[in-house]
Amino acid sequence: MSERGGGGPFDGILARGGVAEQVSDVAWVRAMLDVESALAAARSRTGSIEPAAATAIALACHAEDLDIATLGLDAAATGNPVVPLDRALTAAIGDATVAGQVHRGATSQDVLDTAAMLVAHRALAPLLEDLVAAADAAAALADAHRGTLMAGRTLLQQALPITFGLKAAGWMTALDASAIRLDAIRTTRLAVQLGGATGTLASLGEEGIAVLGAFAQELGLAEPTLAWHADRTRVGELAGALGVAAGAIGKVARDVILLAQTEVGEVHEGTPGRGGSSTLPHKRNPIAAVSAVACAERAPGLVASLLASMVQEHERAAGSWHAEWRPFGDLLETVGSAAAWLRDCLGHLEVDAAKMRSNLDLTGGLLLAERITTALSPSLGRLGAHELVEAATRDVPAAGRSFRDALAARPEIAAHLDADEIDRLLDPAGYLGSADAFIERALGRRKKGPGSP
Amino acid sequence: MSERGGGGPFDGILARGGVAEQVSDVAWVRAMLDVESALAAARSRTGSIEPAAATAIALACHAEDLDIATLGLDAAATGNPVVPLDRALTAAIGDATVAGQVHRGATSQDVLDTAAMLVAHRALAPLLEDLVAAADAAAALADAHRGTLMAGRTLLQQALPITFGLKAAGWMTALDASAIRLDAIRTTRLAVQLGGATGTLASLGEEGIAVLGAFAQELGLAEPTLAWHADRTRVGELAGALGVAAGAIGKVARDVILLAQTEVGEVHEGTPGRGGSSTLPHKRNPIAAVSAVACAERAPGLVASLLASMVQEHERAAGSWHAEWRPFGDLLETVGSAAAWLRDCLGHLEVDAAKMRSNLDLTGGLLLAERITTALSPSLGRLGAHELVEAATRDVPAAGRSFRDALAARPEIAAHLDADEIDRLLDPAGYLGSADAFIERALGRRKKGPGSP
Amino acid sequence: MSERGGGGPFDGILARGGVAEQVSDVAWVRAMLDVESALAAARSRTGSIEPAAATAIALACHAEDLDIATLGLDAAATGNPVVPLDRALTAAIGDATVAGQVHRGATSQDVLDTAAMLVAHRALAPLLEDLVAAADAAAALADAHRGTLMAGRTLLQQALPITFGLKAAGWMTALDASAIRLDAIRTTRLAVQLGGATGTLASLGEEGIAVLGAFAQELGLAEPTLAWHADRTRVGELAGALGVAAGAIGKVARDVILLAQTEVGEVHEGTPGRGGSSTLPHKRNPIAAVSAVACAERAPGLVASLLASMVQEHERAAGSWHAEWRPFGDLLETVGSAAAWLRDCLGHLEVDAAKMRSNLDLTGGLLLAERITTALSPSLGRLGAHELVEAATRDVPAAGRSFRDALAARPEIAAHLDADEIDRLLDPAGYLGSADAFIERALGRRKKGPGSP
Amino acid sequence: MSERGGGGPFDGILARGGVAEQVSDVAWVRAMLDVESALAAARSRTGSIEPAAATAIALACHAEDLDIATLGLDAAATGNPVVPLDRALTAAIGDATVAGQVHRGATSQDVLDTAAMLVAHRALAPLLEDLVAAADAAAALADAHRGTLMAGRTLLQQALPITFGLKAAGWMTALDASAIRLDAIRTTRLAVQLGGATGTLASLGEEGIAVLGAFAQELGLAEPTLAWHADRTRVGELAGALGVAAGAIGKVARDVILLAQTEVGEVHEGTPGRGGSSTLPHKRNPIAAVSAVACAERAPGLVASLLASMVQEHERAAGSWHAEWRPFGDLLETVGSAAAWLRDCLGHLEVDAAKMRSNLDLTGGLLLAERITTALSPSLGRLGAHELVEAATRDVPAAGRSFRDALAARPEIAAHLDADEIDRLLDPAGYLGSADAFIERALGRRKKGPGSP
Repeated sequence: MSERGGGGPFDGILARGGVAEQVSDVAWVRAMLDVESALAAARSRTGSIEPAAATAIALACHAEDLDIATLGLDAAATGNPVVPLDRALTAAIGDATVAGQVHRGATSQDVLDTAAMLVAHRALAPLLEDLVAAADAAAALADAHRGTLMAGRTLLQQALPITFGLKAAGWMTALDASAIRLDAIRTTRLAVQLGGATGTLASLGEEGIAVLGAFAQELGLAEPTLAWHADRTRVGELAGALGVAAGAIGKVARDVILLAQTEVGEVHEGTPGRGGSSTLPHKRNPIAAVSAVACAERAPGLVASLLASMVQEHERAAGSWHAEWRPFGDLLETVGSAAAWLRDCLGHLEVDAAKMRSNLDLTGGLLLAERITTALSPSLGRLGAHELVEAATRDVPAAGRSFRDALAARPEIAAHLDADEIDRLLDPAGYLGSADAFIERALGRRKKGPGSP
Repeated sequence: MSERGGGGPFDGILARGGVAEQVSDVAWVRAMLDVESALAAARSRTGSIEPAAATAIALACHAEDLDIATLGLDAAATGNPVVPLDRALTAAIGDATVAGQVHRGATSQDVLDTAAMLVAHRALAPLLEDLVAAADAAAALADAHRGTLMAGRTLLQQALPITFGLKAAGWMTALDASAIRLDAIRTTRLAVQLGGATGTLASLGEEGIAVLGAFAQELGLAEPTLAWHADRTRVGELAGALGVAAGAIGKVARDVILLAQTEVGEVHEGTPGRGGSSTLPHKRNPIAAVSAVACAERAPGLVASLLASMVQEHERAAGSWHAEWRPFGDLLETVGSAAAWLRDCLGHLEVDAAKMRSNLDLTGGLLLAERITTALSPSLGRLGAHELVEAATRDVPAAGRSFRDALAARPEIAAHLDADEIDRLLDPAGYLGSADAFIERALGRRKKGPGSP
Repeated sequence: MSERGGGGPFDGILARGGVAEQVSDVAWVRAMLDVESALAAARSRTGSIEPAAATAIALACHAEDLDIATLGLDAAATGNPVVPLDRALTAAIGDATVAGQVHRGATSQDVLDTAAMLVAHRALAPLLEDLVAAADAAAALADAHRGTLMAGRTLLQQALPITFGLKAAGWMTALDASAIRLDAIRTTRLAVQLGGATGTLASLGEEGIAVLGAFAQELGLAEPTLAWHADRTRVGELAGALGVAAGAIGKVARDVILLAQTEVGEVHEGTPGRGGSSTLPHKRNPIAAVSAVACAERAPGLVASLLASMVQEHERAAGSWHAEWRPFGDLLETVGSAAAWLRDCLGHLEVDAAKMRSNLDLTGGLLLAERITTALSPSLGRLGAHELVEAATRDVPAAGRSFRDALAARPEIAAHLDADEIDRLLDPAGYLGSADAFIERALGRRKKGPGSP
Repeated sequence: MSERGGGGPFDGILARGGVAEQVSDVAWVRAMLDVESALAAARSRTGSIEPAAATAIALACHAEDLDIATLGLDAAATGNPVVPLDRALTAAIGDATVAGQVHRGATSQDVLDTAAMLVAHRALAPLLEDLVAAADAAAALADAHRGTLMAGRTLLQQALPITFGLKAAGWMTALDASAIRLDAIRTTRLAVQLGGATGTLASLGEEGIAVLGAFAQELGLAEPTLAWHADRTRVGELAGALGVAAGAIGKVARDVILLAQTEVGEVHEGTPGRGGSSTLPHKRNPIAAVSAVACAERAPGLVASLLASMVQEHERAAGSWHAEWRPFGDLLETVGSAAAWLRDCLGHLEVDAAKMRSNLDLTGGLLLAERITTALSPSLGRLGAHELVEAATRDVPAAGRSFRDALAARPEIAAHLDADEIDRLLDPAGYLGSADAFIERALGRRKKGPGSP
């Protein structure tokens, strides 16, 4: 048994994509070491230590050399893993003067919080890549299927016709919205932490703020106005944005699962070599969509944990800070995995336009009843039209007629609409409203880049 | 028994401030009517109905005339309250042609979603006012108490000295960060909803997008690229931001409660006429802070509900949409109530600087041991200095000495630090690092307005 | 605007059934008054006050006479509504000596906690009635449809045949399990609260425990070993059990929604006068199931809130107790509403056995491929059989054959299975395993009553 | 990098105690193999396979031989790790006939669900041991400190005197209640899963139910009435009970943290070699309590996830089942870790009775004001007595008097109470009500064993 970060029996499903590696045990330790190294470099920049000392510290900061399991166990004595990490780091540096500079000015939480921000910064790269790629795939579907007719469904009942392009455009805008927000957080809200034991940077004397600025530059993270040891708005915002991304992904994936049902059959996942059932050869399980739903579904509980842990006492908290560590990495991992699955799913989606059309025709035109009513309203009044059309819909099952024939068979209707007109009105392609215009502007705005409404 | 929105036995505590009224039953119905009215106005602007018809519809849209309880009960037949609302509205309009224009083009969810956005827009006004006022109060405390020494506490143990100003500045930045985000959502992400049954605006023919634009302008909400019936990123983002605000408020309120403990006694809530105990006359309960914590604590679960409900099927969902209604209003209400309580709490906070100082002296200078070690390190080496100082700290309880005397009594220490120097080093006012500079730049950036890092 | 408890625009959907009335504002106040009355009666039983005084107090305890809204507002001054309630109660009693006995011995939390337990006790009655009635309806469906063949579905793909009876039996056992647990909590874990300010019952002198026992008897609630002001295991257990009931209900309701899809059409909700769409006459929306899902979906977040609030400080908490009030009632209400909807849904469910059968035949027998493999395995080896059958399944789409013909057309298969045997093996009615036996024992154990495994 | 289950940098804090090992990656795989082995043994018992075949399968079931990381990756192709596990298992068995019997009758979810129940059964053993040991420690404190006076605190303000024994008894009853429920679930609700693809056990022909019974006996788990693939009440009940345990643990741990505050100082954690701060030598961080709070705080979000995932479609779900895997293990681990920390904390708790007493005296007797009022009421009327006493309390800060002197200085009071009587009334030891009786019966009932109210 050893550290987290790959290798478990569920990881192929629940830890897909590039995020898992960025939140692994090794990645956390590497981030902590990068922080210690950057702190020394920052102090070298401000002139408080020799460049050679910073270099020596940087050279000692190798995650590979550390026994992470021992470090984790030793964390129990002091309440966090930074203390034993620094002990190991100090021991690795021969020169006592240099060793004495390790971690100077910082408290353990400075290192761990900054490491968490680094972990998030690194994990969001593959996460956003997968999320945007999934949105790209949705955009391509929207573009390719502007004219692919299908039933729009509300409460899982067929309602009015749409195009698959419109549905895919809706997937795209939701995924894009969540990616835009995550990207903004990555750029502006992931900040270094440096305050010393109580946020004053007392042990750095006069140079505290200068070191803080240099430290942020070293790591490419934002510089906070103050130490945020007990102000967890950054963590909460990241959590919220990840929760929104999970919701957007889950929505798309569930749509795919529903469209792939045996009785619906409008889409299939086409990834080679996946989804077959060993004992049920006819099944084509939508594994990618199912896995995306599974990963996304974990998010709300993890977000709730992180938000609940925001209530942190005084200068540094008594438990709620430690409570963040696991959900922080888990949330990144599960949303990253969901994004990776959805990218796979949408990138290989097989669309059965003929099945979409035949499903749309299942109700024999009843979906267009509203349109017939509207066409009759000028002559018969809205209420009168409504009643007549509704009566015709009841004839369909009762008299075994098609809706077209049921309409034509009623003289009050036939007086106003001849058979050709009825056929025209029952053609779903003619009742799509602004579907195409919506797709057009959604794709157009996307090309202009993020930030468009 | 009648509708929600004030009047319950818990409302004085859990529904404080101006938000509760904006999320009441009446407010929801008023918002729905405003939406129907705006839709008619928008269609009048695009020329599809006569201005007089829009005016007649607007005149009929009076929440006061509706029996909300009946409307609510009737909602059970169709699954939402808009159908009976429109029935009532239609009945209230004499002219059948005009009545026939009510709700045209929209589906029930268009009305309810837009109403929800209106409700949020209106509720965020008092919420942000209270939140910013609480931040203002924190800023005033930060400014007034730059020099007020107190113990910084980590894990609820005294650690290093800080100033109360620095603590209040941290409160301020957390509250501001959450307010900035909520304000941005209010301005850019609260959008009208208009798509018709399946998002195509089919029944509006060619004019769909024009009506959508006019509709957004009528209501002062953003215009979405597409219908977002099943894309709940807007709801999720709002929920996340409210959850973050709750966390920021809860943190400040818990600090106040802890500082107000009988044994700590560093602050008291000074609101006249509140907090006394009828049977325990010595008690000064920090009611405002306690109530703020209570209200904030409900948020994470409500956020989780809203995020979980984002997974909505196809064009309009089968349950998850309805599941939003209560937590949407409840989350606004409880965060609004928390903000109102915190404003009250901080606005009347009595700070006992003398008690802060005497608590800081409780450990007889032990808090400054780090500083002594640092001062001795050049002469004795870091490790040697550390061991000597630690030994001196053990003398304090063992030998019944003050830390000052324990230090002076050790010749190895006295050789390097005379009594005056020890006194100087043990003065907490001299070991505040960048505390003042941090306060300065936090207040300075605040004056420049939101958006500063 | 006035108090909670009926009348809102969403209540027809989100507050269905008998629970809403039991958790209304009036119900809470009534419960508090019942508690004050019972406390006086208990003290009369132990001889510390005159029976006449207890009677006078009981007579004054009328919720109707109280202005709940004012009481709620006044709660803000002391942090809970019991103080103003007692003030009103005292004022309503002419005799000062008697008035002085009101609330004696108790702290506000004693009254409110005991009222909460009463509210839960009363609310669980209609909730359990609806839940058990829903299970009864599921049992009737299980019994009636033992032989109704349908496709079993996994990952929303058809897998192997089942009977609708087996599916309904699974619904029944889940609903029963959740009802059994709720009933056990109702009987054994809902307890009175009586401890005075810090749990010692100091102001009751020697008679504390005797009054506690009498108080529990008066109210028909359990007697706790100790005051549980800050031990919220009872609240947490109730919350957990309600969350489980919500999950069980949500599962059944979602199954109904899926079976009612336009393309599946195996069940319909048959409640008269509900589910029609005014503009889409062909739609039969499964309103009851959709509403049940909506109500159930709120539960996990509310449970999380109540569990998070269990961490209550010292003898009585600073916020987390107040944080319970809303989710406590909301959780009862939403699960009660879900149960009422499900009872309605299952009680009126129309089952289309023919559609179930035709859907089962959609894959032309492919669902039974496993059975063919098993039949061929003795002759051809498992692997050989598997490969042959899989090849035959691929012939179905490729060669446009039925599975039956595809099997018969392969000589290696025909050598071992003749046409009749193939027909027999492809008959889903012959491949139901223990379905009937499972139904039998589930119904049998149910008759024996709760507690069976 | 390799599998979960020990070794991470946070594990010393977040994965303490014996549970972590029972929910590790290896433990999951071992449990799956135990399930496959037990299934073969069960089929041997019912006579459908040779005992030798069952033995051969059992011999092949060695977790050590498997490459878990590869197995996890391969799970992505089929959506769960059982398929590659069975492939490996089959490959490990030389005899093709025997190999063909592996997994016969079961579907992947049968194996994984039963493995989850085994994992829970095994993990609950150390969890319950730690939880009961923590309750034992609380019981010992209750017994030892029946007479140790301290301030009872409400809203973190001193209220009335209690004994530390009473506080510890309240800790004990909360911990015991949560342990009793977890133990009941372990014994009666953790059941095997066996249903085949759709719950009919079709491929086992007539012997399905017999195999199910034998399978349950083999594993020492309960036998369910039906397959529960999509009835997750067992999982939900376990989750709820773990959430309650977390709440009970968190409450106790937070009390310890509050009592250990520098300014309160009534308890200290006495575990040797822990809690020191390298840079702040005076600090005695309550690491165990802090870590227990951290671990407990994760629970509500995880419970919410598991409850939300209960809504599983049809015979086997499309995502919500997979969504259970991580929170299932994580919840066991974090509650187990919390219990282990609390056991450590309470087992080494140092109680400073003198500090408790001096804190109780901080308000100079004001805590007993209620008692003075009660003593004066017969003579002066309740209202008159109340006003006089309140006036005296105001003299304390105003006139710089002790409360005793302030009382004696008022002639209206002195007329009824002489100095000795005032002293007697102000002695907190005399105003403990039923504290001792409560402790007595709590300890007494505990000795009689679980199940007492």
